[in-house]
Formats: sequence, C-alpha cells, structure tokens
Amino acid sequence: MRRGVGVRCGPGVALGSVLVKDEKDAKAPKSEQTRTLILETALRLFQERGYDKTTMRAIAQEAGVSVGNAYYYFSSKEHLVQGFYDRIAAEHRAAVRPVLDTETDLETRLTGVLLAWLDIAAPYHEFAAQFFKNAADPESPLSPFSPESEPAREAAISVHREVLSGSKAKVADELVGILPELMWLSQMGLVLYWVFDRSENSARSRRLAERGARLTTRGVSLSRFRVLRPLVRDVHELFTDFLPGMAEAASARKRR
Amino acid sequence: MRRGVGVRCGPGVALGSVLVKDEKDAKAPKSEQTRTLILETALRLFQERGYDKTTMRAIAQEAGVSVGNAYYYFSSKEHLVQGFYDRIAAEHRAAVRPVLDTETDLETRLTGVLLAWLDIAAPYHEFAAQFFKNAADPESPLSPFSPESEPAREAAISVHREVLSGSKAKVADELVGILPELMWLSQMGLVLYWVFDRSENSARSRRLAERGARLTTRGVSLSRFRVLRPLVRDVHELFTDFLPGMAEAASARKRR
Repeated sequence: MRRGVGVRCGPGVALGSVLVKDEKDAKAPKSEQTRTLILETALRLFQERGYDKTTMRAIAQEAGVSVGNAYYYFSSKEHLVQGFYDRIAAEHRAAVRPVLDTETDLETRLTGVLLAWLDIAAPYHEFAAQFFKNAADPESPLSPFSPESEPAREAAISVHREVLSGSKAKVADELVGILPELMWLSQMGLVLYWVFDRSENSARSRRLAERGARLTTRGVSLSRFRVLRPLVRDVHELFTDFLPGMAEAASARKRR
Repeated sequence: MRRGVGVRCGPGVALGSVLVKDEKDAKAPKSEQTRTLILETALRLFQERGYDKTTMRAIAQEAGVSVGNAYYYFSSKEHLVQGFYDRIAAEHRAAVRPVLDTETDLETRLTGVLLAWLDIAAPYHEFAAQFFKNAADPESPLSPFSPESEPAREAAISVHREVLSGSKAKVADELVGILPELMWLSQMGLVLYWVFDRSENSARSRRLAERGARLTTRGVSLSRFRVLRPLVRDVHELFTDFLPGMAEAASARKRR
C-alpha cells in the first residue's frame, strides 16, 4: 500500500523517496528523481536553517544541481512548499487506505484519518512550528486556504468525502457536499493545535484527534434533524466566503 | 461614557491616556501616570521597532525613567503585553455600554460588541500582525488562552455574559455558563481573521463580525432544542480541556 514511503525519520535526517503516484514503472524517470532530490534537500535545509534563511541558491548548491535547474522544477521557495504539501497529501492518501477500505463506522474512519495525518507529519513537527508564521496569513500562498494550495487542499477534502461516503452514517443529501469541507476545516484546527503541541509524541494532539472525531460523528448524526441544516449551511457559507481560496474551489467544483 | 479614551490615532502616534476605571478623582495618582507612560512608550516602540527588537532598557530610556523603575511596574516585556491586553479589555468594556444599556436584541448586542472591539483595536492593527507570531502559541504567556492572560480573558468573557443575560433571547439554564465562553472563542476567531485582514478599514472583518453575530444568534435560538445541548456541552468541554488557561479559569469560576 504505502509503496516507497520512507518517512519515519527524525528532522534533519535525509528523507526516503516518496513515490505514491499510481505509476506502472517502479523506478521514477530522471526528471522525477531530480525533482524529489531538490524537494528533499529544501526540506532538510528549511529544518536546519529555517525557512526564511534558506535561499534557492543554497538549495541548488546542496542538491548538486545548477540554480537554473532548481528554478526549472520549482519557480520559487513557495512552490517548494506547495510541493511539500502535495507530498504530505499523497502520503496521507496512501496511509489511510487500510482504515478506509475496512471500517464502516464514521468515528473509527475519521479517527484513523486524523491519526494517520499526525503520523505522517511527525518528522516535520519542528519545522512546522517555525514555518507557521509564514502560513498563518490566509492571504499567503503558503496558507492552506490560499488559491495556490488548492490541489493539496482538494486532495485532503476528498479524503474526508470518502470518510463520509464509505461510512454507514446517514447524511442528508443537502449536506453531503459541504460536510467534507467542514471536516477538513476541523482538521486544520487540529493541525494548528499540533503545531504548538509540546507533549511527548504529540500525545495531546492525538487525544484531540480522537475527541474531535467523536464530536464530529455526533454532529453528523444530529444532521438528520432538519431544523439544524440551515445552521450547517450558514457555517459552511461563512467559511467559504471569508477564506481566500475556498470560494474559488467551491465554484470550480460546481463547474466540474 | 468613554471617559479619557483617546485612542483613535494611527500607529506610532502617542496614544492618549486611558482612564476607564471607575475612579472618583479625574486625575490619576503619580504612580498610575508613570505606569501609563511606560505602557504607552512600550506600545509605540513595539510598533516602530517590532516586539522582539524592543528591550526593557530602550523602553525605560525612551520613557525617561530608570530601568529599575520600569521593572518595578512591569517585571518583563510579557507583563507589558498583559498590561496592553488589560487596557484593551477596559476600553472595550467602556465602549460597549451604549449598546448593552439600550438594546435587547441578541444579534444587535453581539454585533455592537464585536464592532466595538474592531474599533478599539484598529490603531494596533499593524502591530498585531507582527506581534501575532508571539501570541499564536497557546503555551505562550502572550496567548489569549494562557493562564497569564486570565484577567483580560475573564473580563472579555464577562462582556459576552452580559450580551446574553441582557438580551431577550431564551437560553437553557445548562448553557448559560458555557455559551459566553463559546462566544468569546468565536470572537478570538474574528481577531485571528482581523490580524491578517488587509481590506480597507478592516471592512471584511467588520462584515465577518456581522455575519458571525447572526450565526451565533441562530445557534443560540436552536439551543432550545434539547437534543442539541449535549453537543454544545461537548464542544465547550473540548475547548476547555485543550486550551491551557481555560480549564483553570473554569474551575476558578466554580470556586467563586
């Protein structure tokens, strides 16, 4: 399932290559290898020197490629971070297969998905705390709510779509489209908590994931009460209206 | 009502003295004047030079007091920020009197309270964005969720308590104790949004305040449905369990 995901190493250690794409050939082409090398070198330098202090020149030099070559793959440091988001999202999609393929209980599915995210993000915990100030601004391209983050965000939301659709929980038709986004938003709340969590092995974040999943499950089961649906819709509308990339993503989905 | 609140000046401009305490004598004693002078000098330097780069020595020098004297009033830079929080809270308590004394509609009261906060915070907008990275960590003494911020937080929550109690909205007894905290938490969501809001005069934050107040009012009116109450309690419990200062504050209130 998790082919080539060699990521359980501490910060600063070279990260294993990640090839979770559905490629027929086990060996990635040369260009993909170079791309991965640059991305991993960048992540290592971000962790060692800090995001702000790491230049594209330093990344290229450390990776042993020309600066022009580095810019060919990632036209800015921001694009490197998007590459990092895409990679986390891809690893996560692979890691949640066991629970999504076997469990039908909504709470179990959601807990599994949230804990898998914490597992995958663990090596980047130190980096996340110092990186946070660049990503907290919803207008920043590095924000999970930015238009630039749409592919990674959309991938993450689609995981929640599957959490819901594969469960035996009954969800009103009119909420099927918006609940996954709200579940992803609460995941972002968990991520924010985790960024600052100093408990050993992020134990508190793991407990929050479990408690949050239980709460979401209760909320979903209450959605059978018709009187509540306008409120759920209003909450969703509030978020999509006020978070930069969300409105665009919602209308793009409608067009599809 | 807003005696001595001379705060509508841009960042970097010396701020008027703020005496919103219920003091019989219009003129503050010397020690209070010195305290205010140090606090205002600190805020000006934080805005001009940034929080991290401003030392207590520089604040004392600029205020024309000895370093020892500055430390007598504020034992650290963090205490200065707490002083700033207390001051914002005091100004806010004064500014909301007109709406809380005359309106009984919950949405009107809450909108008034949130917009008043945005008005009062406006001069500090620039400072807030650069200061944010110090306050985002819930474990930091500067976080609104820290034990150190309890007095300012408690003052802010008590405003929401009055928003609710003075309205004609019917609230179930079992929710009276927790709704004000949840309303304050949603205010913190608004503050987070405002920190990064770049629209002119924070127009988007103002619209979010109005929309949020409407949503909260709907939520409160739904609380008459008994089936929802466990969910409200669970949400509240989640926040108080996982935010550092909230649990202590809750138990302290119980003791009173």
